[in-house]
Amino acid sequence: MTESFHYRRLVQFADTDLAGIVHFASMFRYMEEAEHALWRAAGLSIHQREDDMGWPRVSASFEFRNPLRFEDEIDVAVRLRDGGRRALTYDHTIVRGETVIGTGTMTAVCVSRGPDGSMRAIEIPAEIVQKLRAVLRRGDDQSP
Amino acid sequence: MTESFHYRRLVQFADTDLAGIVHFASMFRYMEEAEHALWRAAGLSIHQREDDMGWPRVSASFEFRNPLRFEDEIDVAVRLRDGGRRALTYDHTIVRGETVIGTGTMTAVCVSRGPDGSMRAIEIPAEIVQKLRAVLRRGDDQSP
Amino acid sequence: MTESFHYRRLVQFADTDLAGIVHFASMFRYMEEAEHALWRAAGLSIHQREDDMGWPRVSASFEFRNPLRFEDEIDVAVRLRDGGRRALTYDHTIVRGETVIGTGTMTAVCVSRGPDGSMRAIEIPAEIVQKLRAVLRRGDDQSP
Amino acid sequence: MTESFHYRRLVQFADTDLAGIVHFASMFRYMEEAEHALWRAAGLSIHQREDDMGWPRVSASFEFRNPLRFEDEIDVAVRLRDGGRRALTYDHTIVRGETVIGTGTMTAVCVSRGPDGSMRAIEIPAEIVQKLRAVLRRGDDQSP
Repeated sequence: MTESFHYRRLVQFADTDLAGIVHFASMFRYMEEAEHALWRAAGLSIHQREDDMGWPRVSASFEFRNPLRFEDEIDVAVRLRDGGRRALTYDHTIVRGETVIGTGTMTAVCVSRGPDGSMRAIEIPAEIVQKLRAVLRRGDDQSP
Repeated sequence: MTESFHYRRLVQFADTDLAGIVHFASMFRYMEEAEHALWRAAGLSIHQREDDMGWPRVSASFEFRNPLRFEDEIDVAVRLRDGGRRALTYDHTIVRGETVIGTGTMTAVCVSRGPDGSMRAIEIPAEIVQKLRAVLRRGDDQSP
Repeated sequence: MTESFHYRRLVQFADTDLAGIVHFASMFRYMEEAEHALWRAAGLSIHQREDDMGWPRVSASFEFRNPLRFEDEIDVAVRLRDGGRRALTYDHTIVRGETVIGTGTMTAVCVSRGPDGSMRAIEIPAEIVQKLRAVLRRGDDQSP
Repeated sequence: MTESFHYRRLVQFADTDLAGIVHFASMFRYMEEAEHALWRAAGLSIHQREDDMGWPRVSASFEFRNPLRFEDEIDVAVRLRDGGRRALTYDHTIVRGETVIGTGTMTAVCVSRGPDGSMRAIEIPAEIVQKLRAVLRRGDDQSP
């Protein structure tokens, strides 16, 4: 798997539900944590208190293949799709050892937030994409 | 919107994040709550302690159109797709008044759980689908 | 139970954990939801986008007496302690029918937030306490 | 701080709320994660699928001293109180560098769960306490 970033994590008790497995919505938190870890590995933060840039999601999806359980160790691989002047699309693969837990996709749009909370889509600063791609080319991983 | 069930809910503080809007993963909890409310309206429960049937998700997706904020009142409309012998596919539309917040889809497979936690896909009992469809035809709503 | 406000709610699937009961941290969300419902009943909101007032917690505790399960209907009774110029202390009792699930206490301090995110304790506006007490005297309840 | 175990963690985006800081209920998840990491460091797991032992909480409290923010690195120190034949009481201190975020206490009772979901308090196996104390004496830390 070339040009991917790996985020490792342990499944926590609060991530599970009464079916004895990880609650399905937890996968979206895992995908987001991996995205933010990628940004940190690039020397960036998805949220800087002093600026007005934001990254709300425009779509998120996950295909579940195998259940996850408490204290399972997972590896979330993140890749970045080409293109997109105002939005970034990430593809995720979550595995536990050799077992694929599932695959997901998430698109976040770059916005400028006004003081009243309004949001306006803007072009992504070129430097951000360059830094993210540099990490992906190195094939870094980071926990957590 | 014919053949749909409506679930109403208020956005809670814990559903939000530092961007000042509802965290994207909360939408999946809203979709699930609406699904379970539909089951209750049909005199059913998605989880019965005394039986071994379960409904793990095989896919979930959401398209975000407009942000949601603390104390917004939302209406989650649920519809059920035709077909599917071993799985149910629900389509959701979340609105706040006239504003569409987003649309989602969720597929859950009917399984029999073994005492060791293993899961095996089984045919959906016909009575379950009949009862769910009866509620959808009536166009019920229930809060919460 | 005099001078209390009642908030009713159903236990949702995502509130549970693999032990088959409600995750202990969910009780704190229930307590918070009840607090905010009390504010709404008083014509107030704990969070107004246009002002800089906030209510961070300074303490929170809960004593668990009986387990809660999926689809249980609960009633959260909230009371407000006397006194406190800069902080409000709420006492909560969560019941399911005649069964006491547990009791909790939460203290929130009234702060003014600076544009840099800093927080400074301030005196609680008298009107807020008057409006909350008026609801509690009436013994209102609200769901959800 | 002698006889303590340290669990390190990064504050995630989903842990925050619209006030721009970590939601107060997240502290209880951090405390629980630290408890479970202590068990793993002792070669134990708080939950074993094949046995019927459980550890429901009987009380949990937290005193908040300073706010936590997105991407803050925290250290959760856990200590174990003496005594308690049927329950374990943990004391927690959460810090970010030199800043104390808050202190908490959590008591979990050892139960045997019946096949119907009922729970009965039992004596804690001596070996569990011995193994936990051995880790605490070594002053281990583990992330995450």
